[in-house]
Amino acid sequence: MKALIIAAGEGKRIREISGDLPKPLIPLLGLSLIERVILSAREAGIKDFVIVVGYKGKEIKERIGDGSRYNVRIEYIENKEWRKGNGLSVLKARDRIKDNFVLLMADHVFDSDILKELTREGLKGKDGILVVDRDMRDYVDLKDATKVKVEEELIKDIGKDLKDYNGIDCGIFLFSPKIFDAIEESIKQGDDSLSGGVKVLARKGRMGYLDIKGRFWIDVDNKNTLEIAEKELLRSLIKDTDGPISRYINRPISLRISRILVNTRVTPNAITGLSFLLSLLSGLIFFLGGWMNFILAGILTQISSIIDGCDGEIARLKFQSSEYGRWIDSVLDRYADAIIILGMSYGCWLGFKDALVWIFGFLALTGSLLNSYTAMKYDQVIREKKMKFRFGRDVRLFIIMAGALMNQIFLTLVFLSIITNLENLRRILVLGHNT
Amino acid sequence: MKALIIAAGEGKRIREISGDLPKPLIPLLGLSLIERVILSAREAGIKDFVIVVGYKGKEIKERIGDGSRYNVRIEYIENKEWRKGNGLSVLKARDRIKDNFVLLMADHVFDSDILKELTREGLKGKDGILVVDRDMRDYVDLKDATKVKVEEELIKDIGKDLKDYNGIDCGIFLFSPKIFDAIEESIKQGDDSLSGGVKVLARKGRMGYLDIKGRFWIDVDNKNTLEIAEKELLRSLIKDTDGPISRYINRPISLRISRILVNTRVTPNAITGLSFLLSLLSGLIFFLGGWMNFILAGILTQISSIIDGCDGEIARLKFQSSEYGRWIDSVLDRYADAIIILGMSYGCWLGFKDALVWIFGFLALTGSLLNSYTAMKYDQVIREKKMKFRFGRDVRLFIIMAGALMNQIFLTLVFLSIITNLENLRRILVLGHNT
Repeated sequence: MKALIIAAGEGKRIREISGDLPKPLIPLLGLSLIERVILSAREAGIKDFVIVVGYKGKEIKERIGDGSRYNVRIEYIENKEWRKGNGLSVLKARDRIKDNFVLLMADHVFDSDILKELTREGLKGKDGILVVDRDMRDYVDLKDATKVKVEEELIKDIGKDLKDYNGIDCGIFLFSPKIFDAIEESIKQGDDSLSGGVKVLARKGRMGYLDIKGRFWIDVDNKNTLEIAEKELLRSLIKDTDGPISRYINRPISLRISRILVNTRVTPNAITGLSFLLSLLSGLIFFLGGWMNFILAGILTQISSIIDGCDGEIARLKFQSSEYGRWIDSVLDRYADAIIILGMSYGCWLGFKDALVWIFGFLALTGSLLNSYTAMKYDQVIREKKMKFRFGRDVRLFIIMAGALMNQIFLTLVFLSIITNLENLRRILVLGHNT
Repeated sequence: MKALIIAAGEGKRIREISGDLPKPLIPLLGLSLIERVILSAREAGIKDFVIVVGYKGKEIKERIGDGSRYNVRIEYIENKEWRKGNGLSVLKARDRIKDNFVLLMADHVFDSDILKELTREGLKGKDGILVVDRDMRDYVDLKDATKVKVEEELIKDIGKDLKDYNGIDCGIFLFSPKIFDAIEESIKQGDDSLSGGVKVLARKGRMGYLDIKGRFWIDVDNKNTLEIAEKELLRSLIKDTDGPISRYINRPISLRISRILVNTRVTPNAITGLSFLLSLLSGLIFFLGGWMNFILAGILTQISSIIDGCDGEIARLKFQSSEYGRWIDSVLDRYADAIIILGMSYGCWLGFKDALVWIFGFLALTGSLLNSYTAMKYDQVIREKKMKFRFGRDVRLFIIMAGALMNQIFLTLVFLSIITNLENLRRILVLGHNT
């Protein structure tokens, strides 16, 4: 399925931040707005794009190219009449699009799940489906938004000045080629906007809608909406399975770091490596023994725990996530855990030469690694049952830091031995109860 | 979808082993033949059964019951004319079956994947699909088998005395209710067998087939075929991911044990528990230190490694496998590994008080647990690429036994440290290369 992206307009209101840059090229967390639209669509399985450019079209073409950089194909169409209604931009693509297609706006930021659902559900016998936000969230600029009136499964009316409305047009569409006729019909009636075409289909009962169901979208139109988009994108990186330390300490810090790093050329893999090296260093310093070293190593452990969030965050912000990347990150985390606990055991044993140190080190290591082993299955249940509590790596490393600061390495090993293995027993029981 | 099972015939030839027992009740690895048919069909998603009984029907009804024991629904039909052709048995079910249905023979043993494919693929516009074995395996009794002639996707002819044939009727069918008319038509022509009805559909071009593609099936007809069925069922328990020690040492022994235990009331969970307790015991004996204890512990380790195969084997033979059962078995295996390596480390340290013992114990434990952690992902690749080599728990425990027998615990820990962690590194590289 092809996607048509409208990137022709001037976007006057956003000049305050964009300066001379055409609106689709405004940067947001390491990618331009139009790159986010292309990559979100790619996540929904779309590989072919037609982009209609107008205002500063050459600049956009040069920056985005033929799509090979994003692993998609992109062709361009120029609309010299970009000062007129956006229905004309859609109409220009008529020759290039013969099948059902997705229509997107180059300056909208949205959760790619919306597009996945839209393409999966299809037209359902209609000629157009419009994604509609019925939640009327307070960051939608109601004065400027295109309103819609929906009834049962149909769009009944659409327009900026609609008085009786119950939803907002999110600017995400699925169309059959009939939309081109509809726009022509609307132009004859004096309305050259896309909404005009949609209204024609709506009048014939051929325009359905898809509820956004609380998922995120925003029309980036000015400084304020750009800031909201950034905040929402960062917030979407918080995982359901984040434990309490992650949620309240690590994630807020790692998101701030990622927000900066995403604008640099630092790759997710480099950060995975850095976090691993910090753990290695922390383990080596634990090895040396002595309170001062323990303090340093404990702090390093907590820092590596924070940094460990950044690789995934940056990968997701830049659409660079991969299954292998997540997997190798998790394997290295396990090795990092092992090195830290080995260092603690040796460092502790130096000051207190009893085999008990090693035995509890062993049990703490076993419990910790098997926490991660059982997590693969347990996390499914957490997600399905929307459980809040999760005892995981974030908590374990925090306990290690706390123990190190207090010079209580032996007690920490004993405590970890008990708590990690009890947690594994609890998971075995919970999963047994749930199956 | 309903399944109709024909269990009316007398099966004279098998009297040599069955004595007075009706053929469907002949035991095979802990279940009667008809129980295997019901449970194989349940694995393919079938929950409703109609069983046509005749010879000793009361005994069958009493033994199998209403299906609640197998979590399915079973109704019975009596065919007093069971001495006549088996087409009559099918015809008796006419009132009970209004939709497409699966037809099975109570005395055939088969891989349930065949049935999964058959129900998934459906009738493909025909009125009947017959599963056909085109491999002419040497254990098929060609004199007694029903032969078929297939051409393109159709059955062209069927019969016991067919001279020009290229396949064998496996006795597994998918039918629309049209088969009832076809059998009636055949009876009028003087043939009251099921093959007669199939021939009527075949002549109209309404009978398709599904190739068995090398999967296992057998018509259990005498002592010889019963033995083949047992051998094939046991062979199907060997996993693609079995490592070399498992394949050539553990599995041949565990299959012999399972073959006996499957006829007792010992449950898979009890065996999981026993294997874990043996590992625990082995770890405790390692703890005591000294060569004699090491030898005993090493042998116990290898025994627990063998027993560890039996729970899964019995569960699969009795259709009692569950995802949770497999998972908890794997978690307990990890704890068993940890206890054994902890015992080795302590036992070794008793005779050789150097922290290096503990450090290598730590590294061996880390490598071993992370072998299992990485296996979850790596095994997918093994299966997809049909790779032969697998370094896993079977090999690790065998190395531990060998080291214990030679009183070389420290060397064993060093060796395990190196080989398990190198294997993890290798997997990281292989998976990186394959993604």
